[in-house]
Amino acid sequence: MTIVQPPPSALSPDLVARFKAIVGDKYAVTDPQEAAPYLTEERGLFRGHSPLVLRPGSTEEVAAICKLASETRTALVPQGGNTGLVGGQIPHGEVVISTRRLDKIRAVDTQSNTMTVEAGVILANAQQRAAEADRLFPLSLGSEGSCTIGGNLSTNAGGIAALAYGIARDLAIGLEVVLADGRIMRGLSSLKKDNTGYNLRDLFIGAEGTLGIITAATVKLFPKPRSVETAFAAITAPADALTLLDLSRSIAAGSLTSFELIPQIAIDFVVRHGPSIRAPISGTHPWYVLMEISSPRDDARDTLEAILAKGMEDGVVHDAVIAANLDQRNAFWKLREVISPAQKPEGGSIKHDVSVPVAAVPDFLAEADAAVTRLIPGARPFAFGHLGDGNIHYNVSQPVGADTAGFLARWHDVNTIVHGVVKKHGGSISAEHGIGVMKRDELPHVKDGVALEVMRAIKHLLDPLNIMNPGKVL
Amino acid sequence: MTIVQPPPSALSPDLVARFKAIVGDKYAVTDPQEAAPYLTEERGLFRGHSPLVLRPGSTEEVAAICKLASETRTALVPQGGNTGLVGGQIPHGEVVISTRRLDKIRAVDTQSNTMTVEAGVILANAQQRAAEADRLFPLSLGSEGSCTIGGNLSTNAGGIAALAYGIARDLAIGLEVVLADGRIMRGLSSLKKDNTGYNLRDLFIGAEGTLGIITAATVKLFPKPRSVETAFAAITAPADALTLLDLSRSIAAGSLTSFELIPQIAIDFVVRHGPSIRAPISGTHPWYVLMEISSPRDDARDTLEAILAKGMEDGVVHDAVIAANLDQRNAFWKLREVISPAQKPEGGSIKHDVSVPVAAVPDFLAEADAAVTRLIPGARPFAFGHLGDGNIHYNVSQPVGADTAGFLARWHDVNTIVHGVVKKHGGSISAEHGIGVMKRDELPHVKDGVALEVMRAIKHLLDPLNIMNPGKVL
Repeated sequence: MTIVQPPPSALSPDLVARFKAIVGDKYAVTDPQEAAPYLTEERGLFRGHSPLVLRPGSTEEVAAICKLASETRTALVPQGGNTGLVGGQIPHGEVVISTRRLDKIRAVDTQSNTMTVEAGVILANAQQRAAEADRLFPLSLGSEGSCTIGGNLSTNAGGIAALAYGIARDLAIGLEVVLADGRIMRGLSSLKKDNTGYNLRDLFIGAEGTLGIITAATVKLFPKPRSVETAFAAITAPADALTLLDLSRSIAAGSLTSFELIPQIAIDFVVRHGPSIRAPISGTHPWYVLMEISSPRDDARDTLEAILAKGMEDGVVHDAVIAANLDQRNAFWKLREVISPAQKPEGGSIKHDVSVPVAAVPDFLAEADAAVTRLIPGARPFAFGHLGDGNIHYNVSQPVGADTAGFLARWHDVNTIVHGVVKKHGGSISAEHGIGVMKRDELPHVKDGVALEVMRAIKHLLDPLNIMNPGKVL
Repeated sequence: MTIVQPPPSALSPDLVARFKAIVGDKYAVTDPQEAAPYLTEERGLFRGHSPLVLRPGSTEEVAAICKLASETRTALVPQGGNTGLVGGQIPHGEVVISTRRLDKIRAVDTQSNTMTVEAGVILANAQQRAAEADRLFPLSLGSEGSCTIGGNLSTNAGGIAALAYGIARDLAIGLEVVLADGRIMRGLSSLKKDNTGYNLRDLFIGAEGTLGIITAATVKLFPKPRSVETAFAAITAPADALTLLDLSRSIAAGSLTSFELIPQIAIDFVVRHGPSIRAPISGTHPWYVLMEISSPRDDARDTLEAILAKGMEDGVVHDAVIAANLDQRNAFWKLREVISPAQKPEGGSIKHDVSVPVAAVPDFLAEADAAVTRLIPGARPFAFGHLGDGNIHYNVSQPVGADTAGFLARWHDVNTIVHGVVKKHGGSISAEHGIGVMKRDELPHVKDGVALEVMRAIKHLLDPLNIMNPGKVL
């Protein structure tokens, strides 16, 4: 199966005019300065270019754009909040379709516990709208103030509540999708069960815009918890975190809504560089767990105390602090949120978004640490993340005082070593951020060969001209 | 897109010998008497024929069968426990591949909370193995003593615990699949998060064996509940059941593991014809709810009592009985299980497995009842099922004393009317049983046209010779 090469990016003035006519001049951006925010992402890691940014205001306009693009073999890059971390949303000469104006919440159904949202709705706004209806939309991640539902679904986002409520895929019931040729697949639905034929929904979720453009989705809502309690617990080793996880689950079951592993080095960096953040537990401990219990009743506190008491009794937990009030709870989560940015002042950081079976996390960490520090003596492993999902953000900070450029030049070598350990444990090199361009060339080395053949065949089937986000994923 | 017609079913003796050589003579069935159990299903609604039943003992043997079938354009019908209700597993001249010998539980991982099972493992055995590891595998349905995991996944089974734990699709993490041409797609995985490319898993789940053969799966396990409490509650109308559902969720959240709607007529039939089953609540009431609370702690009883007390206080629940012990709990569920067979002594029954948005259930029931009794005066609507999923088994028993054959001759007319009401409410004509042959010809009338085109294109892509369960679904 050969993927058709993307067409050249030069657009004739006539074609630009035809695209503009679909969305209206006001919503077609050609001015370089106005287009700039669509062409690079926050970290500046991926910088692109595009002759035209289109901001359609309806599904029908998206469909008209795709139809014209298909007829003229014009390549497109769909973009939501532009918060992706693997370059999937950055154009390299393609026309950008920004979904941000598709920002309506079409329906909230508190009896069926569903909400129908357009692709451009910002995640925090969707959460807010659910809360107003006394419901919870549980998807939650660092960029929730600017990322969009369409992007969340296209990248199959994870986040801090996936342990209890699932990843983006688990939260979607129905989708509306515009195909490469402009056909609209209308699959919005509030049905919890529907066995009429193949599941096409999950093909588009996580496809990073390479098979079609998600324009709206019906998502699940949950009862809003009546009590939420959050704690920091100090532990000795990742294996103890697993023991605590098992213990927590046996006491709290589905009420255990977050379980994040954090190393001492992350606390050090955050306290050193974070905006007036204090260590939640005095002294230093090798590792910490940030955990949260959410309950429909008033018993979250009792549950959390029972877990921590048992953890101490069993010698797994050395010290623990339960957030005394909402401010303290917010401070705990703020700390978690700034872990990644707090690495920046410490120099270069080589990052990995990996997952292994939950049981394999301790071995993975020990082996990856050993391999990385053998390769680069003094390198500082900095591993944190969603332990309950086996999803570790395995970052490596440069040795103190080392040359940053020289360290970052080893990015590929470090990736190779870390991903090697991941593969040994049957893990994934992209747990929640996707493939984009960043990991595209590595995909063939980690994916089952037959699965890759089927992926390529499906790409060719749904996008024969390769105009949908070409060069991404495959 | 045209689907290639299935080839004729006559197999040359040479070809039969080549297929037999793959599995060994012992596991190739050509004797009509020995083959009979594979050719018809329990109800006798679908009767088929086949020149050869193959019982492979490994994934590699399944792959070899598919490869030979592909080379010789021999059509195949995969079959698990042969409990399907829409005829999907019944051959009409094709070679049957029975997965029943693929019955190994390959791994149980209590830290990652996953279990890897082969397709032919009987559901009850999978449940049992999980329980032995102090875990819960929550998929549960009437036929669990004989249905298989492969069939559960291929039909995306639902059942009585889907409300809290999800349907079969939600419980699967990774799959091993043999494609039509014999390639093996190895996607078994214990990873909770894996965003490396398109989700192919969900394409095969629910495809009813038309795209490939699922040979093994990694599924999710849950902590085993420490307390389980079950109640029958008498209510006036389906709308009250919705109120009670909402109230139950607000008190119990994820601990509400079952919520089944049952009409008085079902109690009447069961008491009249069931094997020594008594009505759980004295007197007659228009409707009942059978509900279950499962908790990791000892508080299921408190929770259930709180729900029922509030329900009575609000005037929603008229009377309620909590099972006093395991025997009584089993009796409640036994009653639920025999609802469907108890219709048989009352004459003909025209059945529907439909779903609508949860909020629309009361309107759907009222409108369907009115339409059906207008068409056939005296017909007895008999609607029960998984209210929490909006999934109603909308059956219609014949009028008392009517001619059964004459009543059953109206099957199509009744279907048309009931499915019309379903469609009006944005519902599904197959909530959990699938399409098979039974609903194949109706699918084009209810499915989004573009989705249907994509389904056909994917079928053609993965099974260009149309040898995988031809004539089913599409």
